Amino acid sequence: MFEFQLDQTDGYARAGLLKLPHGEVETPVFMPVGTQASVRTLSPLDLEAAGARIVLSNTYHLHVRPGEEVVAALGGLHKFMAWPHPLLTDSGGFQVFSLAGSRKVDEEGVEFQSHVDGSRRKLTPERAVDIQWALGADIAMALDHVVPGDADKAAAEDALERTLRWLERCAAQHRSLTEDAKDRQTLWPILQGATFPDLRKTSLEQVQTIEQWTGIAVGGLAVGEPKDAMFEVLDSLAVSLPNDVPRYLMGVGFPKDLLNAIARGMDMFDCVAPTRIGRNGGAYTPDGPLQIRNAAFRRDTSPIDESCDCETCSTYSRGYIRHLFAADELLGLRVLSLHNVRFLTRLASEAREQIKAGQFSGWSNEWINRYNKRGSS
Amino acid sequence: MFEFQLDQTDGYARAGLLKLPHGEVETPVFMPVGTQASVRTLSPLDLEAAGARIVLSNTYHLHVRPGEEVVAALGGLHKFMAWPHPLLTDSGGFQVFSLAGSRKVDEEGVEFQSHVDGSRRKLTPERAVDIQWALGADIAMALDHVVPGDADKAAAEDALERTLRWLERCAAQHRSLTEDAKDRQTLWPILQGATFPDLRKTSLEQVQTIEQWTGIAVGGLAVGEPKDAMFEVLDSLAVSLPNDVPRYLMGVGFPKDLLNAIARGMDMFDCVAPTRIGRNGGAYTPDGPLQIRNAAFRRDTSPIDESCDCETCSTYSRGYIRHLFAADELLGLRVLSLHNVRFLTRLASEAREQIKAGQFSGWSNEWINRYNKRGSS
Repeated sequence: MFEFQLDQTDGYARAGLLKLPHGEVETPVFMPVGTQASVRTLSPLDLEAAGARIVLSNTYHLHVRPGEEVVAALGGLHKFMAWPHPLLTDSGGFQVFSLAGSRKVDEEGVEFQSHVDGSRRKLTPERAVDIQWALGADIAMALDHVVPGDADKAAAEDALERTLRWLERCAAQHRSLTEDAKDRQTLWPILQGATFPDLRKTSLEQVQTIEQWTGIAVGGLAVGEPKDAMFEVLDSLAVSLPNDVPRYLMGVGFPKDLLNAIARGMDMFDCVAPTRIGRNGGAYTPDGPLQIRNAAFRRDTSPIDESCDCETCSTYSRGYIRHLFAADELLGLRVLSLHNVRFLTRLASEAREQIKAGQFSGWSNEWINRYNKRGSS
Repeated sequence: MFEFQLDQTDGYARAGLLKLPHGEVETPVFMPVGTQASVRTLSPLDLEAAGARIVLSNTYHLHVRPGEEVVAALGGLHKFMAWPHPLLTDSGGFQVFSLAGSRKVDEEGVEFQSHVDGSRRKLTPERAVDIQWALGADIAMALDHVVPGDADKAAAEDALERTLRWLERCAAQHRSLTEDAKDRQTLWPILQGATFPDLRKTSLEQVQTIEQWTGIAVGGLAVGEPKDAMFEVLDSLAVSLPNDVPRYLMGVGFPKDLLNAIARGMDMFDCVAPTRIGRNGGAYTPDGPLQIRNAAFRRDTSPIDESCDCETCSTYSRGYIRHLFAADELLGLRVLSLHNVRFLTRLASEAREQIKAGQFSGWSNEWINRYNKRGSS
């Protein structure tokens, strides 16, 4: 039920097929983020039409509101958010470490303050697994200790060691929960080690001694470190990651980063950027991003992206969408979010086709050159 | 091209068919309001799926932003907002008189301050017609002088007389514009006279001397007067309005008001309530309106309205929609707006069926009794 089939490689780039309880997912794949069990402004039908096949939701947010017991009472996360396809929940670790407010880490877990009601709560490895089990996504993530992109080596090593000890506890808890329902949910580990390739190597080796995983995530990147440092880590991992499981690069999703990470063997991606940027009037195009509020688009009858097949591009002119933003019409946020999600799912699909044709590298370079001519995100 | 066919009457209630350049509209009909060329949060496909057949947009708002010349440059209002079906634009009169800020009325027209940039602008009868011609809706409305619901008779009479003089100028201007394009747009007059049945009678008689209209609107109601006073005016008009044109009751659209006005021979309605109420967490049901933020809905697995066929009711539980509102997720605004629009289009359709079956009065009384048991809006 949690199988990964590697269809084709092209250099380090990979085309694969991930089989999950709620459906199959072709990789490389971009996962839109539904932080609070809703991909901002978009309906499940929108997401399907935009080519999304797996959606990510946030354990931390759903735990504090409405609470996993409410989600469970309403039929579990798939039914709750009316998304019958695969789902992945993060562990809550990243949110706890990145949200403002005081938090206290000790060996048992991390204590934090709810951003909703200010209450003190404790997330332990066992609790993170229990919450995700109650939510019921196809893929759950182990609780990790995330450090900032500029962390020094001692801090990174300390967090890595703790993440590994927590991983053993997550795995034990998940085994006990899935004893009678092995096909319901899988648990993936998260590699840490900040920007230090030797720590990343240790992380990968140690993680693999704990269990036979069905997927491995790379965490703690795109958290403020220089982009070169991120790619250096990915380069170092590309040669040593196991080939028979999908590799999920957490929190990465700008168009060029997606291609550069696919080139380094990454298969799965998530990012709030397409919807967040969309709500701010930004739209991806093959010629780089555009800001629709720009007065130049006032009378522009062309679509956001001539080559795009999404509802936004087949329905509205840039001039109309600019008007929606100028007039604070909520439809504007929605139509750009939809387009940006579609842009990334198409990019991942096209990368897959190019890998299968053995032409990924040349195509990717051309794509990035064209994109760079106007924009840089 | 602007024909009205009266299919059936049942008491004063009427079932008809209005033929317009962009399509046919069965009456009674509820028109969702796209103030700024967008029905808040809803796409044209949503509106079609919700059974909307004609949409209203606001001349005043489109004139100040983006400007009718921009709408025209982007292909006219239908193409601009991607709504290929019938459209009606109001004249701007109601907005100018109801929006905050100073305004000055004289015989020539009304001077007002733009709510967008504060600039002084003048709307004359000719200008109101010109703007609507540039926008290109199927139905344009004549510029009227609207007085508040508690206006005294002298003020109401003065405004009515001015509205009649302005109507002659609107009609002359529209005739000159449509000389070579008679099938493109029609102009409807607006009856005024506040809550004074004798003024309303004068208004109707005078309006009919000016031209052979293809439709007649009743304005200046639902502007703060007691509901009894509104129905008294409609009662007085029911016997004297011509039968061969549609009758449009402006700004009315709460469910019970719709039925009570249909009983008095009204055919067309518009109101921002379904989308405004929806954005505030209110949802219409046959048992009265509900407020989805109510804690009682936290674990409610049922849809908003068991009897509704809209995407919202066939997709989401009340518990999930409550979560969307609690978590400030924009999808919540959208799903309730969609349901509320569908609720009113279904109500109008069902009224039509009951009229055709000669059972409107009994059905309407039962419907209102059930609705009253819980709510009162």
